[in-house]
Amino acid sequence: MSETIAVIPGDGIGHEVVPATLRVLDTVADFEYVHVEAGDAVAERTGEPLPEETLAAVTDADATLFGATGETSADVILPLRDAVDSFVNIRPARTYPGVDAVQPETDLVILRENTEGVYAGIEDRLTEDVSTLTRLVTGSASRRLGEFACEYVAEQGLDGFTVAHKNNVMRVTDGLFVDTIRAVADERGVAVDDAYMDAMATGLAMDPTDYDVIVCPNLAGDVLSDLAAGLVGGLGLLPSANVGSERGIFEPVHGCAPDIAGEGVANPTATILSAAMLLDFLDYDDEAAAVRTAVETTLAEGPRTPDLGGEATTDAVADAVVDRLS
Amino acid sequence: MSETIAVIPGDGIGHEVVPATLRVLDTVADFEYVHVEAGDAVAERTGEPLPEETLAAVTDADATLFGATGETSADVILPLRDAVDSFVNIRPARTYPGVDAVQPETDLVILRENTEGVYAGIEDRLTEDVSTLTRLVTGSASRRLGEFACEYVAEQGLDGFTVAHKNNVMRVTDGLFVDTIRAVADERGVAVDDAYMDAMATGLAMDPTDYDVIVCPNLAGDVLSDLAAGLVGGLGLLPSANVGSERGIFEPVHGCAPDIAGEGVANPTATILSAAMLLDFLDYDDEAAAVRTAVETTLAEGPRTPDLGGEATTDAVADAVVDRLS
Ligand SMILES: CC(C)[C@H](C(=O)O)[C@@H](O)C(=O)O
Ligand SMILES: CC(C)[C@H](C(=O)O)[C@@H](O)C(=O)O
Repeated sequence: MSETIAVIPGDGIGHEVVPATLRVLDTVADFEYVHVEAGDAVAERTGEPLPEETLAAVTDADATLFGATGETSADVILPLRDAVDSFVNIRPARTYPGVDAVQPETDLVILRENTEGVYAGIEDRLTEDVSTLTRLVTGSASRRLGEFACEYVAEQGLDGFTVAHKNNVMRVTDGLFVDTIRAVADERGVAVDDAYMDAMATGLAMDPTDYDVIVCPNLAGDVLSDLAAGLVGGLGLLPSANVGSERGIFEPVHGCAPDIAGEGVANPTATILSAAMLLDFLDYDDEAAAVRTAVETTLAEGPRTPDLGGEATTDAVADAVVDRLS
Repeated sequence: MSETIAVIPGDGIGHEVVPATLRVLDTVADFEYVHVEAGDAVAERTGEPLPEETLAAVTDADATLFGATGETSADVILPLRDAVDSFVNIRPARTYPGVDAVQPETDLVILRENTEGVYAGIEDRLTEDVSTLTRLVTGSASRRLGEFACEYVAEQGLDGFTVAHKNNVMRVTDGLFVDTIRAVADERGVAVDDAYMDAMATGLAMDPTDYDVIVCPNLAGDVLSDLAAGLVGGLGLLPSANVGSERGIFEPVHGCAPDIAGEGVANPTATILSAAMLLDFLDYDDEAAAVRTAVETTLAEGPRTPDLGGEATTDAVADAVVDRLS
C-alpha cells in the first residue's frame, strides 16, 4: 500500500516549486497525493488561511510536502507544526560544488526546537503603552529535543553537538534549556558544547566549519538557519523537516517570494531536498540518496536558476533532476 | 574644566585594551579618569560584581569607558546601561582597507533598543517543568528609539533606516515596536523599511551593502551586531556606544576573551574606536575624527594583532595609533 502525502503548494512560488518537486518524487516513488490549500489565496477567498480540510489532510497523511505561504504564514505553518507534534525542525545547510557561497566549506545541521520559546503565542497588550510576550521553555520539550539530538548525532556518526542559547540573559528559561539538554547528553555519553547565540553568529559568519550540529531554541534556530542559508548561497538551497512524531512536514526554509512569483524561475532545490528528507522519513533511503545525488549533479553541472547565476526555469531544473534519476 | 571619565577595565583582556586606549585618549584630550572595578575578579574578592562605588562613579561621570567582563557580564553591563538610562546601543560595523573580511564592502550601523525586550529580566520557574520569561515592549521605548533613529539618519545625511523584527510571530510586541517606529518616521518624513530578522540574517550574510542603518529590538541587535562583526573581520573591530541621555557608556562589542587574556596580544581597535565614539559624545569632533583616521591608517599599514593575521602586541598597535596622532 502506498503512503499518503498531503501536498500544500501555498502561495507564490509554492505553486512552482511544489509541482516541480512532485515530478521528481514520482520518478522514485509511488505515493498517493492529497492536494490541499493553505495561505493567503485561500484566506482571501474563504477567510481561513488554514481550512479544516487541510488540517485533516495533514494529520491523516503519512507526511506533508509544504511549499510556502505569504502574509498568513504564521497562521498556517505554526498550527501545522503543532498539529503533527513535530517537536524538532531539522535544517541542514551545506555548500555544493558549482554554487557560489560566502563560506564555501559550510556543512552543518540546525536542530531547532519547534514548539515553544517565543513561538508559544502568549502575548498581551497590557496598557496603551505596555505589551508583553511570554517566552515558554519547558524541561520536557528541552529533554525530548536533547534526546533527538543525541540519536541524530549517533546516526550521523558524529561525536556531539553544540547548544546555542543566551543563558546569561535568559537565565531561568535558557538555563533550563541548556541544563536539561546537557544532562540528557551526559546520560548518553554524547559530547556537548555550548555557545551564546550572538557569539555563534560571529563564529558562523567567520568559520562555519567549527560547527556540525547546532541545537537551539525556536527563534535562535529561525535566525541561525537563515544566516546559514546566507553563507551557503541563499535560501533557495535550504530544506527542512518538521519531525519528532509519526508524521512529518517537509518544507523549504524560504518564503513564497512574491517578487519572482509567476515567472517560473524559482529555484526548486530547497523543495526537492525537502522531499528527499521526506523520503528519508518514510524509509526510502536509497531513493532519498538518489534524489540528493541528482540534485548535486544538477547544481554542479547545471541548469541553474537565476538566484544561482543561471538562466534556467524551475521546470528545466526539475527536468534535469528527473533525467539524472532515470 | 576637564570632563570626568569613569574607567572600568573589567576582566581578562579588558586590562589590556583599556589602558592601551587611555594612552590614545591622552594624546588628544585631557580628561580626568576615575578608575573603578567591575566583573568576575572583584566579585570573587568581594562577592559583588558591580560595587556601589563603581555604579556611583558611572552615574557621576560625564562618560564611561568600559572594557569587558566575564561570567558576571550580565550583572555588570545591564545594570550600568540602565543606570545611565542609555536607551540605545549604537553599533557601527564596517570593513577597513588592509583587513580581511568575509564581506569586504560592509558599512552599516545597528541601533539596538537597550532597555527592554527579553532583557527586561522578568523570569519565573513556574513548576519543575515550566519556566517563562516576559518579553516587554513598550510604545514609549519604541518611540524614543524611533526618534533617535530619525535624528541619527538626518545627522548622517542618510534617507532612512530599516527596522528588523519578527512581527509575524511576536505580533503584539514586535507589532507595537514596528508600528510605533514607523509612525515616528512617517511624522518626520524619514523613509523606513522593515524586514524580518531571519531574512535580514540571510541578507546581511549575502550582501550587507543592502543596509545602512538597522533599528531593532534588544536581542535582535545583540545577534545581528555579532553577525556583522563576523562579516567585517571579527569582534576585535566593533565599538559600541550606550547613549540616549546625558551620560554614555562606551564599550567594545567583544568579551573578555579568557583564551588570550594575559598574553598582551588582544586587538585594542574596538576599544579605541569606542573611545572615538566617547569623544563624539563629548563634542570632541576633531579629536574623534583624528583617532579614527589614525586607527584606519594603522589597520591599513600595520602593525596588526594576531586576530587580524599580524604578530603585534596590543601595546604596539596602540603606540602606532598614538604616533600617528602626534
Ligand atoms: C513564517 C514563519 C512563521 C516561519 C518561522 O518563523 O518559523 C519561517 O520564518 C520559518 O523559518 O519557517
Ligand atoms: C554580556 C551580555 C549581557 C551582552 C548583551 O547581551 O547585551 C553582550 O553580549 C553585548 O552584546 O553587549
